[in-house]
Amino acid sequence: MSEEQFQAKIRLYVDHPLAEGQSIPLERDQAHYLFGVMRQPEGAYVALFNSRDGEYVAEITQAGKRGGELTCRIQSKPLQLPPDLWLLFAPIKKARTDFIVEKAAEMGTQRIVPVQTEFTNSERIRQDRLQAHAIEAAEQCGGTYVPEVAGLHRLDRILADWDPERQIMFCDETLVGAAQALQAVESGKWAILIGPEGGFSEAERKRLHALPFTHAVSLGPRILRADTAAVAALTIWQTHLGDWS
Amino acid sequence: MSEEQFQAKIRLYVDHPLAEGQSIPLERDQAHYLFGVMRQPEGAYVALFNSRDGEYVAEITQAGKRGGELTCRIQSKPLQLPPDLWLLFAPIKKARTDFIVEKAAEMGTQRIVPVQTEFTNSERIRQDRLQAHAIEAAEQCGGTYVPEVAGLHRLDRILADWDPERQIMFCDETLVGAAQALQAVESGKWAILIGPEGGFSEAERKRLHALPFTHAVSLGPRILRADTAAVAALTIWQTHLGDWS
Repeated sequence: MSEEQFQAKIRLYVDHPLAEGQSIPLERDQAHYLFGVMRQPEGAYVALFNSRDGEYVAEITQAGKRGGELTCRIQSKPLQLPPDLWLLFAPIKKARTDFIVEKAAEMGTQRIVPVQTEFTNSERIRQDRLQAHAIEAAEQCGGTYVPEVAGLHRLDRILADWDPERQIMFCDETLVGAAQALQAVESGKWAILIGPEGGFSEAERKRLHALPFTHAVSLGPRILRADTAAVAALTIWQTHLGDWS
Repeated sequence: MSEEQFQAKIRLYVDHPLAEGQSIPLERDQAHYLFGVMRQPEGAYVALFNSRDGEYVAEITQAGKRGGELTCRIQSKPLQLPPDLWLLFAPIKKARTDFIVEKAAEMGTQRIVPVQTEFTNSERIRQDRLQAHAIEAAEQCGGTYVPEVAGLHRLDRILADWDPERQIMFCDETLVGAAQALQAVESGKWAILIGPEGGFSEAERKRLHALPFTHAVSLGPRILRADTAAVAALTIWQTHLGDWS
């Protein structure tokens, strides 16, 4: 059979090994979505990925109300890992935090780390809900990898334990001249750090500038919201050092 | 009096000439917002801009239920026009369309043009609501200019009447290699064109490539949503040809 015969419009992330002939048991939620919401019959094809084995087209071999089974038929995409890039950001209002997580998954990052800065309002995040957003974004954008959403941690503690081999690009509103600063540096392990709506505190800014693994960039003459800054910073990094160039 | 005495936390767009000593009558909505919602008393300061005269700090010289008056005291920012950049985009779902307009205002464009392509679902837009979003974004981001939101027009007709001196950067998902294409070209009059979620039709893509004033760029190996593509494209343009560099 040729690959064209396996047309799958639905993509699902599963936490299960994928290989030709492998059968995948469905959880209750997935069965409800596939059979209840999307009305997929036995014999229909679904694309699966798991962040490790690429994408497989699987056939629905058993459909039930509370579960079911898929069987992998053919690999449709190899694993395409995004660059070794993390996004650290200070959580803001719910919709905009969801948006940042969605964009980080869509644009190609390996890890999403909510951080608490001096001017961050949020004391807590719904880590499971943000992880679900990252999964949905990866399902939609055709990626084969879902970035892990970490728990919320204080920025000062994260910086105290930081692996100095991972460079940090952070956005400093007081600077002019964005991308030039990045041209002199090399790819490898990186993180982008986006401050809260009120910006970094003076102490945080001083500390960030003083660290040997940080690179300050500017995002133009207007004040950007944190969600805009995240997408803009991801774009600058991806076009200079990532897999967009 | 020094400028520091005029601290204004609220910024308002008004369609009225601004100059030192100029008095500005308030419309009902603005009076409701300033006095009803924000509880500003007479004597308080508000920052005003109108896309033409920069930003002025104005004093509330009359506060009423249905109106009021502000009097400009001092210019606090000169007019900072964004580059001569338009954003053309195919409207999508309501929240994401609102988002694109907000980002276009925030990131620095002069005009926002909703376009109907072959794969666009929307038959209509709420031009007044989108314009209000652009105003709110400009008020928030500290800009002194609000881009005009145009009505919805068909892409083929827009291209038929296009000023050939305005270059178009469009995002072609079939390409690889984003920003390089832009380094060879000059700034001046530009537009960014973002297709709908389903991409451009084959006929549209061929036509766009054949036009002498178009430049195709890629936005990386993953499929981006239209709203992400808009912010990423604006970032690439602004860092290469705009006022972010």
